[in-house]
Amino acid sequence: MTSPLTSALTSSATGRTARLFWTDSERDADLFYLTGFLAGDPILFLETDGVGELFLNDLEVDRGRKQSRIEAVHRLAEIGDLVKERTGSRPGRGANGIALCIREIAEQRDIGSFEVSEHSSVALADCLRGMGFGVRWRPAPFVPERACKRPDEIEAIRGAIRHTEAAMQAAIDRIAASEIRDGMLYDADGPLTSESVKRTVNGLLAERNCDPHEVIVAGGIQACDPHDRGTGHLPGNVPIILDIFPRDKATRYCGDMTRTVVRGKATDEAKRLFAAVAESKAAAEAAVRPGASGQDVHAAVKKVFEAHGYETGQRDGRMVGFFHGTGHGLGLDVHEYPGVGAAAHQLEAGHVITIEPGLYYPDIGGVRIEDDILVTEDGFENLCTMETVFEI
Amino acid sequence: MTSPLTSALTSSATGRTARLFWTDSERDADLFYLTGFLAGDPILFLETDGVGELFLNDLEVDRGRKQSRIEAVHRLAEIGDLVKERTGSRPGRGANGIALCIREIAEQRDIGSFEVSEHSSVALADCLRGMGFGVRWRPAPFVPERACKRPDEIEAIRGAIRHTEAAMQAAIDRIAASEIRDGMLYDADGPLTSESVKRTVNGLLAERNCDPHEVIVAGGIQACDPHDRGTGHLPGNVPIILDIFPRDKATRYCGDMTRTVVRGKATDEAKRLFAAVAESKAAAEAAVRPGASGQDVHAAVKKVFEAHGYETGQRDGRMVGFFHGTGHGLGLDVHEYPGVGAAAHQLEAGHVITIEPGLYYPDIGGVRIEDDILVTEDGFENLCTMETVFEI
Repeated sequence: MTSPLTSALTSSATGRTARLFWTDSERDADLFYLTGFLAGDPILFLETDGVGELFLNDLEVDRGRKQSRIEAVHRLAEIGDLVKERTGSRPGRGANGIALCIREIAEQRDIGSFEVSEHSSVALADCLRGMGFGVRWRPAPFVPERACKRPDEIEAIRGAIRHTEAAMQAAIDRIAASEIRDGMLYDADGPLTSESVKRTVNGLLAERNCDPHEVIVAGGIQACDPHDRGTGHLPGNVPIILDIFPRDKATRYCGDMTRTVVRGKATDEAKRLFAAVAESKAAAEAAVRPGASGQDVHAAVKKVFEAHGYETGQRDGRMVGFFHGTGHGLGLDVHEYPGVGAAAHQLEAGHVITIEPGLYYPDIGGVRIEDDILVTEDGFENLCTMETVFEI
Repeated sequence: MTSPLTSALTSSATGRTARLFWTDSERDADLFYLTGFLAGDPILFLETDGVGELFLNDLEVDRGRKQSRIEAVHRLAEIGDLVKERTGSRPGRGANGIALCIREIAEQRDIGSFEVSEHSSVALADCLRGMGFGVRWRPAPFVPERACKRPDEIEAIRGAIRHTEAAMQAAIDRIAASEIRDGMLYDADGPLTSESVKRTVNGLLAERNCDPHEVIVAGGIQACDPHDRGTGHLPGNVPIILDIFPRDKATRYCGDMTRTVVRGKATDEAKRLFAAVAESKAAAEAAVRPGASGQDVHAAVKKVFEAHGYETGQRDGRMVGFFHGTGHGLGLDVHEYPGVGAAAHQLEAGHVITIEPGLYYPDIGGVRIEDDILVTEDGFENLCTMETVFEI
């Protein structure tokens, strides 16, 4: 089908084009990246010919002037005054009201069309198009300059990874210190549970001013469902997946690591699974370089699994094998551009990506290992420094 | 202007209408409310004639079948197979690819048009409209049944409030135990800072399996900017605002409370500010009943402030007085329908709202008090049980 990318620009649109945001920067990392301003409710931001302007309600405007890196921070209420002069009533807080404000702003600045992210509001686009403006969305990444990290961003990611590693070590230490009775793990307080290990992780991350997001502590059959966060009593002698991906609130950058451990004795089959995943991860890392695509890296993982005879597909009504991407970009979002999987995203020096192959078979267990990798001019640098141990 | 609410439905659209979501349920509480399924990446959900269907990628589909309350959980990959049969290639993961999948689903079910939230993706709407489907957005609240809480939801909010109160008490205890030297607060470790009090709050909330969101601990001039989270050394003898609004991760419901305290001696002007805010809060609560509007409650607050001569407006380039809404709905989101401020949202029994009047003058300080209020058949119930003290 014809891409609506160009057809969405109405023919009546003239004047300049502005990049437009009407969202909150706690959720929209692009907006935070461009403004340096953290807001939990939707704010209005326009960027015209490289110059950004913020329009904030009276509750936010003073903080915006102090904390954002934008020079032009305006009171949205003053734009509302203009709307009232024209229409006789103050604009509401929904899409219609914001569109009325944007019309005033656009007319002052000779803006005739807007570029928005593909996730931008359909309601706002409809209102603006109804006023004769062009609205064109761009597929992700909407702010592509965010993918190649500056040195200060790489340092911020390293900082988040240090917190991630400390939390991972605390989780592993708790599991390592537990006893096995009748195949299940116990510590001094009784049964060792996923919830209890997560509380250790969350408490340590809170102390370090990190938002833990969700934490995965999943053992046995739960570990075979890669997005199961894990609940209940943890088993001994079978793999437990620990996946920790906090945001450092001081910088807003994230770390993302996975380790898989067995308290006690792993079966030979589980050990072979672990060895294959470790081998695939090394193969993936060896494929990382500027100019390679995420697909190349993903193919390197699949090749190792195929060589070892590990098949992927439906078995007894559930997916087994390797059925997720090899990784994803990491930065202000835990998941961001580029993908390292089905999409043909080309890697560039300065990208930070995760490499996290895994194998999942309910009769053996689930194993995943994940580090955060910087793409460098001549290959890669593993930003994680923590060793990978299996039996503990 | 003409509302695009109806004009957006193209005339070619026939067949049934489905409510459509393509977003993640960690951010979209409507989607979590309808599915009971927590997903951090966008998932596809359609509801036709009250029957919901989830379409999940292979990484999520097993967890979706176990954890969601939706009976029909499908593999999105199987829809992708149909797309490949028709177009010759598998659909991508962007808006175009999802629209191609939705076309297959819609044709099987005789769906001709979609209702989406006003925040729904413009790109998806453009793609679907380009295929001849009608796409109509509705202003918030998109899932209005979420506003009146069921008894189990009210209990979940009470649970979140208990955690909020425990964290608030811990913060107040730390400030109360500090010493004043040269007008600043100190504890055994040295200067008592906003960051240190926040770490206490965050650690306690993590132990209780709560996501703290952001925490505000702002003293002196910082407290006069209601969205300033607070940084640095805390002052004695002037108001410190503590605003805590965590999500209980076990239920996903939130609490939201504010207290303002002075360690040491408050000035007479600050005491008058506190008394006026407390009086306005009582007046607001007295105005809460089914059938009242949020505007009525807000007006009750403004009336008290006007009677005491507290003016609102710009002074020396910043806003002073009372320049935010009186409150907002509270539930799966910290801010949800109904508003208690400028909008004419009518209160109904079962709504849970915050009441949080405040006054902010840089030469006196900032004072805000906030509790969470259930609208009942005959008035209101304060779900918070914690006392309000000023000087500590």
